[in-house]
Amino acid sequence: MPYELYYWPSIQGRGEFVRLALEDVGAGYVDVARTGGAGMRALLRLLDDGGLARPPFAPPILKSGKLIIAQTANILLFLGDRHGLAPRSQAGRLWVHQLQLTLADLVVEIHDTHHPIAASLYYEDQRDEARRRAADFRDSRVPKYLGYFEQVLERNRSGGAYLVGARRSYADLSLFQVVDGLHYAFPRMMARLEEAYPRVAALHGRIAGRPRLRAYRASGRRIAFNEDGIFRHYAELDA
Amino acid sequence: MPYELYYWPSIQGRGEFVRLALEDVGAGYVDVARTGGAGMRALLRLLDDGGLARPPFAPPILKSGKLIIAQTANILLFLGDRHGLAPRSQAGRLWVHQLQLTLADLVVEIHDTHHPIAASLYYEDQRDEARRRAADFRDSRVPKYLGYFEQVLERNRSGGAYLVGARRSYADLSLFQVVDGLHYAFPRMMARLEEAYPRVAALHGRIAGRPRLRAYRASGRRIAFNEDGIFRHYAELDA
Repeated sequence: MPYELYYWPSIQGRGEFVRLALEDVGAGYVDVARTGGAGMRALLRLLDDGGLARPPFAPPILKSGKLIIAQTANILLFLGDRHGLAPRSQAGRLWVHQLQLTLADLVVEIHDTHHPIAASLYYEDQRDEARRRAADFRDSRVPKYLGYFEQVLERNRSGGAYLVGARRSYADLSLFQVVDGLHYAFPRMMARLEEAYPRVAALHGRIAGRPRLRAYRASGRRIAFNEDGIFRHYAELDA
Repeated sequence: MPYELYYWPSIQGRGEFVRLALEDVGAGYVDVARTGGAGMRALLRLLDDGGLARPPFAPPILKSGKLIIAQTANILLFLGDRHGLAPRSQAGRLWVHQLQLTLADLVVEIHDTHHPIAASLYYEDQRDEARRRAADFRDSRVPKYLGYFEQVLERNRSGGAYLVGARRSYADLSLFQVVDGLHYAFPRMMARLEEAYPRVAALHGRIAGRPRLRAYRASGRRIAFNEDGIFRHYAELDA
């Protein structure tokens, strides 16, 4: 039975971290809300299902048989074990998850560059605050995070092609996505910074070139970055 | 060998979620940076240790033998398995972790009520933005989150004394801490809202009354809430 992924149909958002994992391992899945109006209604019904003993707080949500799993990093923890997207050892599993949670923190900060006051308000209603927050993000936070992942790659005793050991993990796929999104949202910043993080840049290219992910992009299934998602290009926030 | 917890010595912060788990199971641990100047230097050395193959991004950090684990939810995932702070079934483990990650999202939002622009700036330098963010937090985000956890308790088929099954999990301890901190930071808001979430309020009381946690508070080991932590009381942000 294929997995069912429930996520908003018009943005990459947090769902894309799950899609990349499913695509990279070649898992069968239905991207439910993208199957048309009935699919979108199924997503809303799931979010509002009073009969669920274990209700999700928000998408993305993955159904696997009877299991209903939410929270991106939690879904990846589950998929990591099932599809070889994480080491088998306890130490390795925890380390990959630790990196994923650090990426999740970064994703919140990226989102909040354009929504520092409230997710419920339009960007235009918090643009001044966004300018302030984005300046700190570019000057202080991005170097801290990218510098950290550069260091993790550098110290990986298995060669540094991936974050953990000698094989790609779900954290590599997620770091690819974050870097890809940063290039979209902050092209000027990334042009300035990228040289300082050559291992991160190489990882981004290495993951982009994986055959199934190339096929995914070529298929047209990958939603384009846009100004409704996490990674938004607003020229005034980039520098 | 006791665990070693590495966290800032003067705030509860994210370290407190780990401390509560360790205290509740009666695990032996050294709160390293609170053992004096040498302990603080040990924390700084760990954060700056160029020899670590798997460097942590930030505290809290738990050492267990050779394992060095960071990211609060990841530490709790580890402790949950070891000390019966989570069910043994895969479905139960994932569900507790999902709840923990939702609490982690809430903790970020709580922190950002007083630091909506940059963690590196003083509160006083982002007070106007904090007022706006805190208003949305009080009116929209807190009801959404507390309403969610109320629902989780209500739907728990094992009776609803705890979030998952019939025993406390690390997510219960963390929900206690969040509610406790909200009472400190937003007393007026909580006085207004608490009635609407009776199960959450009852859980808070139930966890507070656990013998080892009572002993922990009585011991003086629990750092008081203060205006350097996540939960800060600024009257102008409460309403």
